[in-house]
Amino acid sequence: MAELRGNLLVAQSGGPTAVINASVAGVIQEAGRHEVIEEIYAGLNGILGILNEDLIDLNEEKAKSIEGLKYTPAAALGTCRYKLDFKKKADRAARDMERLFEVFQAHQIRYFFYAGGNDSQDTANKIHEQAIARGYEMRVIGVPKTIDNDLPHTDHSPGYGSVIKYNATTVMEIAADVGSMATEEGSCVVIEVMGRGAGWIAAGTVLAKRAPAEAPHIILLPEIPFDEPAFLRRVKETVDAYRCCVVVVGEGLKNQQGEELAADKSRLDAFGHPVLSGAAEHLENFVQQKLNVKSRSVKLGYAQRAAAHMASATDAAEAAACGEAAVRAAIEGKSGFMVKLVRLQHHPYKWTTDLQPLADIVDVEKLVPRDWISADGFLPNEKLIEYARPLIEGEVKVPLEGGLPKYVQLERIRVDKKLPPRR
Amino acid sequence: MAELRGNLLVAQSGGPTAVINASVAGVIQEAGRHEVIEEIYAGLNGILGILNEDLIDLNEEKAKSIEGLKYTPAAALGTCRYKLDFKKKADRAARDMERLFEVFQAHQIRYFFYAGGNDSQDTANKIHEQAIARGYEMRVIGVPKTIDNDLPHTDHSPGYGSVIKYNATTVMEIAADVGSMATEEGSCVVIEVMGRGAGWIAAGTVLAKRAPAEAPHIILLPEIPFDEPAFLRRVKETVDAYRCCVVVVGEGLKNQQGEELAADKSRLDAFGHPVLSGAAEHLENFVQQKLNVKSRSVKLGYAQRAAAHMASATDAAEAAACGEAAVRAAIEGKSGFMVKLVRLQHHPYKWTTDLQPLADIVDVEKLVPRDWISADGFLPNEKLIEYARPLIEGEVKVPLEGGLPKYVQLERIRVDKKLPPRR
Repeated sequence: MAELRGNLLVAQSGGPTAVINASVAGVIQEAGRHEVIEEIYAGLNGILGILNEDLIDLNEEKAKSIEGLKYTPAAALGTCRYKLDFKKKADRAARDMERLFEVFQAHQIRYFFYAGGNDSQDTANKIHEQAIARGYEMRVIGVPKTIDNDLPHTDHSPGYGSVIKYNATTVMEIAADVGSMATEEGSCVVIEVMGRGAGWIAAGTVLAKRAPAEAPHIILLPEIPFDEPAFLRRVKETVDAYRCCVVVVGEGLKNQQGEELAADKSRLDAFGHPVLSGAAEHLENFVQQKLNVKSRSVKLGYAQRAAAHMASATDAAEAAACGEAAVRAAIEGKSGFMVKLVRLQHHPYKWTTDLQPLADIVDVEKLVPRDWISADGFLPNEKLIEYARPLIEGEVKVPLEGGLPKYVQLERIRVDKKLPPRR
Repeated sequence: MAELRGNLLVAQSGGPTAVINASVAGVIQEAGRHEVIEEIYAGLNGILGILNEDLIDLNEEKAKSIEGLKYTPAAALGTCRYKLDFKKKADRAARDMERLFEVFQAHQIRYFFYAGGNDSQDTANKIHEQAIARGYEMRVIGVPKTIDNDLPHTDHSPGYGSVIKYNATTVMEIAADVGSMATEEGSCVVIEVMGRGAGWIAAGTVLAKRAPAEAPHIILLPEIPFDEPAFLRRVKETVDAYRCCVVVVGEGLKNQQGEELAADKSRLDAFGHPVLSGAAEHLENFVQQKLNVKSRSVKLGYAQRAAAHMASATDAAEAAACGEAAVRAAIEGKSGFMVKLVRLQHHPYKWTTDLQPLADIVDVEKLVPRDWISADGFLPNEKLIEYARPLIEGEVKVPLEGGLPKYVQLERIRVDKKLPPRR
């Protein structure tokens, strides 16, 4: 493979995680080891920043800041949910693609790395294909990222281990709290976690459970249609046995008709608008009304995917390794691949990285397999536990100042624009 | 003061905190240093366990477990919300009081320590007064505990430092997340924290803010009636300036008529207070509808008061010291007092413990002073920051196993019952 000299561009896309910045750090640090890579740029707010020619020069950042990205949550480069939608907005997408290549050429970008989930890998794939079609030599590698863990072909996705470590810790702590308050009347707490289509995040909280009496007692996954009577029976049995019942629910839980529970149009607010309550609040009210058991809810929301103070060291290391592997693959002449994580063995946990064609990733959502869930659908089984357990091992050391985490903020030194503004 | 030989009884009451067990550890460890104290018992689930003669023998626990209480959240002895209500249920309360003293006498309890908030100090006071009235020699000391920080006379309450350390960390992390996703359209996230009457918990999250651009941008306190138009204006200004607006709301936020914004009057808790759910969800819908700004909510609920993995070392040390001081005061012959924390200086932070008559505590709720809040009511000012800052200093070291906290569980060896069951 001929040596390719030029500049590197990295960008982040989609919802942030506790470790997506570790992947960027991996890209930058590995790039620094290869002299064919000249400038190291980033697009601010993903593809949107590239379209707007909003680029920053990462070589201008302090080495200490780059290292600090390994414990800093959220997207240090900014992120977006902007899509190249060739199906519904073909004209716009075509213009965008034209503009992207104007920017790539103007800045001599020969290496492009895009860290994100399914949509982002799709974008990377389209850019890879266009580079070939246009005869513009550029190597494009996707870096996996999603707390949802729904990317196919990779054993798991960077971001997942940290979210379930934090969520399982939170479930354990809430269970201690409600358990110590539980008196004869019984109580129920419903904890809502992220996961619209795939229930990996909810499922992973099973790691908090080390005995049948321990929480979570019920885990409701979007993959399993919600069975109201069976759920109520299970809550009642649990309250009768242990006085309190801790339920974890994935936000995308669906009823038997496949509709999301949380999008209940029947509740109206003071203005007469439907209230879109969370799945947890819905279930909290449901249990309270049907069983007359004191119920409460917790909705972790964005807190869970940003909780770097309780991130998994395994996850952070894997995230950084994915960034490094992406650069090495590109240097070796590869393009059109996503880095994936490959599990070599469970105990002790061993893993490596490999590559998967981007085309294999697009539009495939990896769900929790049915045979990883108990027959009654209310708890993941040993297969999931064996899978998830190593992913939460180890703690990321976050420096603290005044009792609070001291996260890194990049200087974001702008690269001079060379093009007229985007039309 | 004559030496008083006999047994010790300690119990916990009200909502747990991340450090209430540290106070129990302080009681037990200090008691072990005084030979006049013979047995060290605990009542399970507070006053309820004493009424039911459900006592455990803390001398039977491993010393390691007692030390482990210093990093273990929730109430290791169990807790309750049971009240001696001489106003509304005078007969029941009188029978309960009779029974309590039967239990105290049967087990030769001469030292009684009750860790809790306002209601629990009231209970402790009534027991203290009854002991005198009955001529039963027993020394009663209250140990302060409440995340709400609404106990009067003490500079602050054990439990408060930890909840604001965790909540401020969470606000900082959520802000990084939404900040990195913010594009032109703008976004708003509303984070609901505990605090029904007093806004100390919400106010304390201001520690996450180190520059005007940083979150939280708005803090809504129960002390300040909610001004809808002014709030919307402030959200809009913030989104225009920084693209995203992070709002923290205390669950007990009230409208101009003094009604809790999110109170659902149909659901009452054990004290007959309306159950509050969804101040954040209420505001999320409000902002979304009125400003058409993408809004999300987070409801930390029980997670915040149980988050020992992010507890304040200062708070844990103070909680333990309050337990120790309670025992020393009783040994010195004091009864009818609550231990309080006294601040000696801000920088460097210095503190000590002292005593306050229980009668001074009862029915007084300490609110955030108006002059600790900005003129417009949307942010606490420097006075609150100076007050709260030292309380979150230092990290409690929690042992981990398999990537999750390893909290202590007591063996709970029962003390033989000597009385017939409670009538």
